[in-house]
Amino acid sequence: MASHGFWSLGAQSAGGDNSSPSTPRAWCQAAAQKFTGGIGSKLCALLNVGEMEKTGDPSAAADPKQGASLAETCSCSDKPCSCSRAAVGFSHLYSTDLLPALDGDLKTLNFLQEVVDILLAYIVESFDRSTKVIDFHYPNELLQRNNWELSDEPETLDDILISCRATLKYAIKTAHPRYFNQLSTGLDMVGLAADWLTSTANTNMFTYEVAPVFVLLEYVTLKKMREIIGWENGRGDGIFSPGGAISNMYAMLLARYKMFPEVKEKGMSSVPKLVAFTSEHSHFSIKKGAAALGIGTESVICIKADERGKMIPSDLERRIVEAKQKGYVPFFVSATAGTTVYGAFDPLIAISDICKKYGIWMHVDGAWGGSLLMSRKHRWKLNGVERANSMTWNPHKMMAVPLQCSALLVREEGLMQSCNQMHACYLFQQDKHYDLSYDTGDKALQCGRHVDIFKLWLMWRAKGTIGFEAQIDKCLELSEYLYNKIKDREGYEMVFDGKPQHTNVCFWYLPPGLRYVEDKVEKMKRLHKVAPTIKARMMEYGTTMVSYQPQGDKVNFFRMVISNPAATFEDIDFLIEEIERLGQDL
Amino acid sequence: MASHGFWSLGAQSAGGDNSSPSTPRAWCQAAAQKFTGGIGSKLCALLNVGEMEKTGDPSAAADPKQGASLAETCSCSDKPCSCSRAAVGFSHLYSTDLLPALDGDLKTLNFLQEVVDILLAYIVESFDRSTKVIDFHYPNELLQRNNWELSDEPETLDDILISCRATLKYAIKTAHPRYFNQLSTGLDMVGLAADWLTSTANTNMFTYEVAPVFVLLEYVTLKKMREIIGWENGRGDGIFSPGGAISNMYAMLLARYKMFPEVKEKGMSSVPKLVAFTSEHSHFSIKKGAAALGIGTESVICIKADERGKMIPSDLERRIVEAKQKGYVPFFVSATAGTTVYGAFDPLIAISDICKKYGIWMHVDGAWGGSLLMSRKHRWKLNGVERANSMTWNPHKMMAVPLQCSALLVREEGLMQSCNQMHACYLFQQDKHYDLSYDTGDKALQCGRHVDIFKLWLMWRAKGTIGFEAQIDKCLELSEYLYNKIKDREGYEMVFDGKPQHTNVCFWYLPPGLRYVEDKVEKMKRLHKVAPTIKARMMEYGTTMVSYQPQGDKVNFFRMVISNPAATFEDIDFLIEEIERLGQDL
Repeated sequence: MASHGFWSLGAQSAGGDNSSPSTPRAWCQAAAQKFTGGIGSKLCALLNVGEMEKTGDPSAAADPKQGASLAETCSCSDKPCSCSRAAVGFSHLYSTDLLPALDGDLKTLNFLQEVVDILLAYIVESFDRSTKVIDFHYPNELLQRNNWELSDEPETLDDILISCRATLKYAIKTAHPRYFNQLSTGLDMVGLAADWLTSTANTNMFTYEVAPVFVLLEYVTLKKMREIIGWENGRGDGIFSPGGAISNMYAMLLARYKMFPEVKEKGMSSVPKLVAFTSEHSHFSIKKGAAALGIGTESVICIKADERGKMIPSDLERRIVEAKQKGYVPFFVSATAGTTVYGAFDPLIAISDICKKYGIWMHVDGAWGGSLLMSRKHRWKLNGVERANSMTWNPHKMMAVPLQCSALLVREEGLMQSCNQMHACYLFQQDKHYDLSYDTGDKALQCGRHVDIFKLWLMWRAKGTIGFEAQIDKCLELSEYLYNKIKDREGYEMVFDGKPQHTNVCFWYLPPGLRYVEDKVEKMKRLHKVAPTIKARMMEYGTTMVSYQPQGDKVNFFRMVISNPAATFEDIDFLIEEIERLGQDL
Repeated sequence: MASHGFWSLGAQSAGGDNSSPSTPRAWCQAAAQKFTGGIGSKLCALLNVGEMEKTGDPSAAADPKQGASLAETCSCSDKPCSCSRAAVGFSHLYSTDLLPALDGDLKTLNFLQEVVDILLAYIVESFDRSTKVIDFHYPNELLQRNNWELSDEPETLDDILISCRATLKYAIKTAHPRYFNQLSTGLDMVGLAADWLTSTANTNMFTYEVAPVFVLLEYVTLKKMREIIGWENGRGDGIFSPGGAISNMYAMLLARYKMFPEVKEKGMSSVPKLVAFTSEHSHFSIKKGAAALGIGTESVICIKADERGKMIPSDLERRIVEAKQKGYVPFFVSATAGTTVYGAFDPLIAISDICKKYGIWMHVDGAWGGSLLMSRKHRWKLNGVERANSMTWNPHKMMAVPLQCSALLVREEGLMQSCNQMHACYLFQQDKHYDLSYDTGDKALQCGRHVDIFKLWLMWRAKGTIGFEAQIDKCLELSEYLYNKIKDREGYEMVFDGKPQHTNVCFWYLPPGLRYVEDKVEKMKRLHKVAPTIKARMMEYGTTMVSYQPQGDKVNFFRMVISNPAATFEDIDFLIEEIERLGQDL
């Protein structure tokens, strides 16, 4: 496991020679003494590749990023050798040779630089439309394609680099302009840089003491988001949580505590039967949260949605009255701003009137649609959100911040703290030398909390609010383009009528052989299989990815969503062509 | 916001010339055409610095990592200029010039490379004992030291780089060998590389479809961890969750569901009054979880601990019997393997006998101490863990995996799925073309879930089990060294007698002026202020960081913990010297 002194390469050519080196090789080796970050060895690698190209050695002319293959072909016996770094590589180095090992800094810098080179190559490839979105393999096949097992013995850093390459080879290219599969797509370069920095800083959000900058940035950013919601002077509270489901759970927890603070100590047995309301199109996390919080899924009453997927306020009121008549206590309404499948926006003003009338906490699940608040053109779809008591808003979806970045915003100050605090004196010491209001950890459900703020904050600085707006407006424009393109096109049928409010475009594709089938039952049965089959083929070809699902009594349909800032009109055209190419024989 | 074509530098020297360039500069510029990753411009920067050094230009000889200062000194008017990349810099580039912008790849690679250079410099500095652990500023001061505000307008990439530098300047160096403040310290280079890759892959754990490799690696790793616990053939279930508090909450949720599955639909009103048990030294997340789950903090019964902080089994049994006599239903015992303050290991075998006798779910909170299972020398401290129904184990603590990485392991298969699943058909389609058992998202409380597995998996490959073992054994050796050093040293008093079981060493430091104070009340009053004052001074000097807290009727004491693989015997010596230096006048 010891270092084999490979890096003495540099030291060999060091010395007191201050004259300008006369050949590229000599110059390069001299320069290698002065600079870290793998530059020195990169220089030599470049030189060698150049020279080997001239001598016609075919293995040497390979892409220098293919370190593994070069490593296998390097068989020189010179010590120290002058082969490219990747060739002599990391085959004699182990993680114990890296920092904090003595003299581990150069090895560390070179190792990390090698990893970065792999990542940079992957990034460029991801944006290249001629590459596959996915190199798909079935689970059992993928398990066999590589050795993924964990063993007692260490591997060399060369093996580690090979594992990194293998992992990326079989990964989904979520940055790919034709990756439309989820609500979170794309890869923002500033967000990525910020996430790399976050990993490097490797700290925890629970106290100012260990995350001074990040705690301040969370404060600044949450305030800005509350201003955008429309809460006076951006006042209120909030937290970045590990995803929209947890943000929604927080909201339900706060609503319950607000109405019955004794529930914290005494539990649900101290309170009457509580009921929550959300539309039948809402996200499953509302029920999941109710199950976890001991409220029970049966106490989540699903309100009817109209044909566009919007909650019907009159049905909400009817069900509230009904619940009260049964002696239940309505405590929580979760309206959705941007439903998962249809992208529908519930009518927030009407819902807020009802919540006010009956004294119920109004939550807005804007995990998907909340980002439209950043757009002057589209924010009217959330009119009334300023009346909500809380809001979930996931910048990792429509704002394309790297995963995960989900905010819960709360109108009332102090409530989160009193609801969740446990006063652990070993973490939140009360006799610290700084302003303790910045030790925000006790208002969280988590103890340790990952730093999710920096990527959002840095992207916001880089784009400005207008940059996010432009990005969002463009995605909506693309979805309108798609809608216009297919709404009257032969073989397509829209799942709901009219222009989508969000980027969700839901449609069936009917292959030619299915278009004139008379038997409705037979037709639906076959249509139900069309989307899954096309999707499976998309994945096997690796050309694009888009989601599908059934909904209620509707058979499987495609749900196209666009949050990927890399997507263009041509990519929309491609998607349609691809659906038709892959589905025409069905 | 448009690109100003700076990168045409490279294109200028392109062409059909295939002959070997005769000067370093010409060769370098030609090479710049072929290689990505900022290498081309690095080459030119290197060349220029070399040449400027010869001409005696002092600003040019500056450290090339100091991009900002170089940027300010570059005032050349050549277009394209041949100054170093950092000099011409990013002052005319915006995030919109990066990928997916057309021809954005070179700019992207150079920008990301610049960020990486900042990070690499920070990493090397972090391990350097001559640098500060923290450049501390009070919140209001830190707010004023930089512009952290978010605005409508975008900033240049140069400003973004400046923000990155500022963020790191005021960050805690958690990798620093003298950072002992939390249970999570240190920075592992392979773990960091893995986290950078994870950010780049930017995907979500909910389905195999979007995270094929990561889902498999989670499967492989959880199985390995269960084998290490001692569950037959590694069978069982588990998940990586956002921190130990959430892992503990999962365990409580599963225990409740196992006993009363109807609670999922019907809530807590359908079940009798449940009570949970944990020691008075356990982590606050047990109570926090009980509050959230609607059980209530009063239903968490705190069992007495002995003077070493271990749960007293006879008290546990007494309280169980007492609860049953009151008609309550004991459903959950959380034993702690490695308490937060004392590092105590509850007697798991005795506790498991009691749990078995009364039919109660046994959970082991091994967030801190679970990693000792990796050590043949220390794993006996968890004897009996194989009898538990579930276990929390945070590799981000004692195994120094980057934050966050917390596992919940569950002995019974399928329980997590039935407890948490909501069958969302838009995510977990049942007619997919691959084995659906790999779509693990529906067993989670979260919907989207960050990829926390890759860093652990890659570190495990790099170190092997024996590498983790060596790292853990070394930390325990260091803590024993500290204990031996201070246990009889003048001015020190141990909080509990005997060799610590984990790396927690708890002690009071009595400054000379306090050692012979007779009045006990006065002495305790003054001693209570010693640790906070020394800690505040440590942070202001930035030399080291260690935690303190009161416990029960004990006044503030230091809790030294060692999980930082960079720490050495000398660092322990330094800590003691520093405490005495900073505290002698108190």
